[in-house]
Amino acid sequence: MNQDIFKLIHETPLIDHHCHFLINDASKNREMRLADVSTEADSSYPLSDTKERTAWWAFKSESKKFLKTDNIESLSTSQYVKFNHALFKNYNFKLLMIDTGFVPDNAIESEEKTEELTGVKVKKIFRIETCAEKCMLQNENFFDWWENLKQDIIHAKANGFVGFKSIAAYRTGLCIKNPSVAEAESAFYDWKKSGVSRLTDAVLINFILWNIASTIIEQNMPLQFHVGYGDADADLYKANPLLMREFLRAWCYQGLSVVLLHCYPYHKEAGYLANVYPNVYFDTSLVNALAPTSTKEVLNEALHLAPYSRYLFASDASTYPEMYGVAAATFESALASHLKGLDFIPYSQKEKWINEVCYLNSMNLYNLKK
Amino acid sequence: MNQDIFKLIHETPLIDHHCHFLINDASKNREMRLADVSTEADSSYPLSDTKERTAWWAFKSESKKFLKTDNIESLSTSQYVKFNHALFKNYNFKLLMIDTGFVPDNAIESEEKTEELTGVKVKKIFRIETCAEKCMLQNENFFDWWENLKQDIIHAKANGFVGFKSIAAYRTGLCIKNPSVAEAESAFYDWKKSGVSRLTDAVLINFILWNIASTIIEQNMPLQFHVGYGDADADLYKANPLLMREFLRAWCYQGLSVVLLHCYPYHKEAGYLANVYPNVYFDTSLVNALAPTSTKEVLNEALHLAPYSRYLFASDASTYPEMYGVAAATFESALASHLKGLDFIPYSQKEKWINEVCYLNSMNLYNLKK
Amino acid sequence: MNQDIFKLIHETPLIDHHCHFLINDASKNREMRLADVSTEADSSYPLSDTKERTAWWAFKSESKKFLKTDNIESLSTSQYVKFNHALFKNYNFKLLMIDTGFVPDNAIESEEKTEELTGVKVKKIFRIETCAEKCMLQNENFFDWWENLKQDIIHAKANGFVGFKSIAAYRTGLCIKNPSVAEAESAFYDWKKSGVSRLTDAVLINFILWNIASTIIEQNMPLQFHVGYGDADADLYKANPLLMREFLRAWCYQGLSVVLLHCYPYHKEAGYLANVYPNVYFDTSLVNALAPTSTKEVLNEALHLAPYSRYLFASDASTYPEMYGVAAATFESALASHLKGLDFIPYSQKEKWINEVCYLNSMNLYNLKK
Repeated sequence: MNQDIFKLIHETPLIDHHCHFLINDASKNREMRLADVSTEADSSYPLSDTKERTAWWAFKSESKKFLKTDNIESLSTSQYVKFNHALFKNYNFKLLMIDTGFVPDNAIESEEKTEELTGVKVKKIFRIETCAEKCMLQNENFFDWWENLKQDIIHAKANGFVGFKSIAAYRTGLCIKNPSVAEAESAFYDWKKSGVSRLTDAVLINFILWNIASTIIEQNMPLQFHVGYGDADADLYKANPLLMREFLRAWCYQGLSVVLLHCYPYHKEAGYLANVYPNVYFDTSLVNALAPTSTKEVLNEALHLAPYSRYLFASDASTYPEMYGVAAATFESALASHLKGLDFIPYSQKEKWINEVCYLNSMNLYNLKK
Repeated sequence: MNQDIFKLIHETPLIDHHCHFLINDASKNREMRLADVSTEADSSYPLSDTKERTAWWAFKSESKKFLKTDNIESLSTSQYVKFNHALFKNYNFKLLMIDTGFVPDNAIESEEKTEELTGVKVKKIFRIETCAEKCMLQNENFFDWWENLKQDIIHAKANGFVGFKSIAAYRTGLCIKNPSVAEAESAFYDWKKSGVSRLTDAVLINFILWNIASTIIEQNMPLQFHVGYGDADADLYKANPLLMREFLRAWCYQGLSVVLLHCYPYHKEAGYLANVYPNVYFDTSLVNALAPTSTKEVLNEALHLAPYSRYLFASDASTYPEMYGVAAATFESALASHLKGLDFIPYSQKEKWINEVCYLNSMNLYNLKK
Repeated sequence: MNQDIFKLIHETPLIDHHCHFLINDASKNREMRLADVSTEADSSYPLSDTKERTAWWAFKSESKKFLKTDNIESLSTSQYVKFNHALFKNYNFKLLMIDTGFVPDNAIESEEKTEELTGVKVKKIFRIETCAEKCMLQNENFFDWWENLKQDIIHAKANGFVGFKSIAAYRTGLCIKNPSVAEAESAFYDWKKSGVSRLTDAVLINFILWNIASTIIEQNMPLQFHVGYGDADADLYKANPLLMREFLRAWCYQGLSVVLLHCYPYHKEAGYLANVYPNVYFDTSLVNALAPTSTKEVLNEALHLAPYSRYLFASDASTYPEMYGVAAATFESALASHLKGLDFIPYSQKEKWINEVCYLNSMNLYNLKK
């Protein structure tokens, strides 16, 4: 029966509710880019250290598993397509929800082309800060900017998006307050004057999040937040989801679905929030792929308190299929190991939970038709 | 010998130094209330999600184990009494220390009736904030209020209490400072004027705790604190016991026994505090019952640094016997697994530690006669 | 092959890049001092509780293993020397880097005498705050003091030191800012006036660290920081390495090698920092010896994200050889268990990682000749 559980998980459809663009394989130096994406470190970090991590070795294993060759450096287009199809099919990926806010070099931004390459359906997630920056460049006046941003949010579903995402954690941290309109207006003009398009002002980011929440509720779409582990640009100290308490209390009881992404090393805290607040969901993506030895522990700890109906599979992968593959492989194995340990849970309930975390929770949360 | 250890633990008396009232079973909807008590979420949280947690399944297993029927919905009074007796006897519960500050609907507040129902002795814990609120309603003047509160504390032992408890973590967080009398006086009159009996003012709560510490030392009774995991009403960010450093430094060296309750996910931090401060004790209650898959990891981590003479069993259970039962079952199993792993510890020492954490530490800390 | 890995680790040279002075065995009460050093608690903490910890039992096992007698209380000088040699040889210790800032009673401060006693080479680490305090006593003027301190740092290598260490975490916490010269000057005169030689002023400590960083880079020597677990004198809340972000961003990209010592319970956070910042190294010393049941979990978690090229063995031991021995034994066993679990890593790579964490990383970081 234990073997059965792994087999059952492996054959269950996977929805990846948080990932990024794949890239064309025209670029040279495939090995270097693969190493590069096996870490959250930036280009000033020595690649020689990156190759001393388990993630890099897991990525290489994944290449070899599906390429059946030791030459992972350069592939023909047909090899690359075959490779992608084989890998995504192996793990039963059925849908990729792509956060459009991060665009790697040589990205395949077209949904159709990504679908062709992978054989997997694609949906898009709307990045709030990116839109706010675009609107700033197009508007001189605070109220015009704000109206423009709100209209884009209102029309997100019509434009093919299935959810929203904020990277407040990267810019100002997760202690989201409720600033006044006057404060926001003043911060907007400071931003305009700065000549920098990147939005980093805490007042404005907080203002946006606090004031679009009701619009997002009306759209019946979830709002994702970067939480915890990410690159050195984020302050991990301020990326603790417990800091979101005021925001969660203000909005989750009113119906806002909040999705906490990544969460490591605050995944126990995220599980706690999903346990006590209505409409809070979370995943433990990114470490699935970038810390393969962590996955069993992290999944177990995430589910100490949280309902299985609130926990979702995601890879947070980008660039190359290996990253999606390692994320899926470690997740499958961690989930199987976790469920095998639950001797007080009937097999039929385990089957239900497998379906929920692999795809059903995402279908419900993102309002996807069956 | 490994089997022996589990058997030995199972046969050792248990003192539950932190739990709450049981209830009469006259109420209908036993299943709904059982699900309700399997979570810290409040009534606005969907019960359907609560039933997707391991705790709910563990509770149901516990019902069936002792009821020997699948009908857990409504029991006759005699069935209920028999059920309670069988469960509490199975785990060798010898004493329940009931925190009187939380009163579930249909609670059995009488110690005698609880003893009749369970077959277990009962002692009471004095809730400080509840008393402060009662005294506020009875006094117009700050100094009268303060004197009234202090008198109640001085007479607590005579009134049958064996310890004190503060829920500062729920109201203002654990960073307990030492405010002046003038600040406290002013805060008291603001509270009186507010018309709200619930005490949430940080100055007053800090003032009370800082200034009753010496009185509590004189009573030779311990002071419990809610720490870490609890319901959404608490700010888990501010419930980190490391924030108590100033208070612990001021009072533990003077002889105040401080007991950190629950602690998850800060149980390693609690173990550290018990390792370096005299008179600091702790437990990892609540997750025993509400996160049954966490118990082995949590107990192991709690005991990384802490002496076995400072760690206590508790359930933090309330309402139905199942909660006490799941807490005891997971604790027994986690403790057995932990001790089995200690190959450098002689069996006789393991026996000593089992006695300590199961009942001896509580007997010493709460000055109970053997 | 699994047995092979443990054997291989056990036979690999160990460099202990962070430890303290051993002591002469002339003192009576060897058992009491051994118990004393098995905890971070100070003398006001009951020794009876210290003896209820796994560390104490691990220390006693270590005594018996190498002394081959139950009498660990008093040893003849020749017994003591033989004992030391046997223990350090068993674990293949090749080099002890002694932090000279902590001097236990009856310490052997001479490197030659320590080498004679242990059979292991010794190098010294320069304690920054100790030097700043010595310079304060020798200088009336801020700029003289500052120049004196800088000169001592510049001449550290010539004086036989191989690295620097700061205990900012013990004095003001790890949120290291960049104060102005004027602020530092004013803080210096306040310190002089205080009559207390102990340096606890946040402005001055931050000023020193921020302004010696470039000098340390020029010396091509690493800067160690106490992080996380230590005695009750430190505020563990402020010893979180994530608070160092501003300092790491300012200096690691410029070439400063920062070494995070101990780290528990923030070892996952330390591993994250080593993963995303160039020139960040860390260890999980102290719990190796003082929390022997934690070592497997802590080592696994430390290496979730970190490169093996950034993680180092250390004991943080002092006083008696048992502490070095328990640290080495638990580390060896934890590393073997960790590597055995990595089924996607070739054996040759595991061999490389063993060499790195046991001695190569330290040789490179501290510029030691092979």
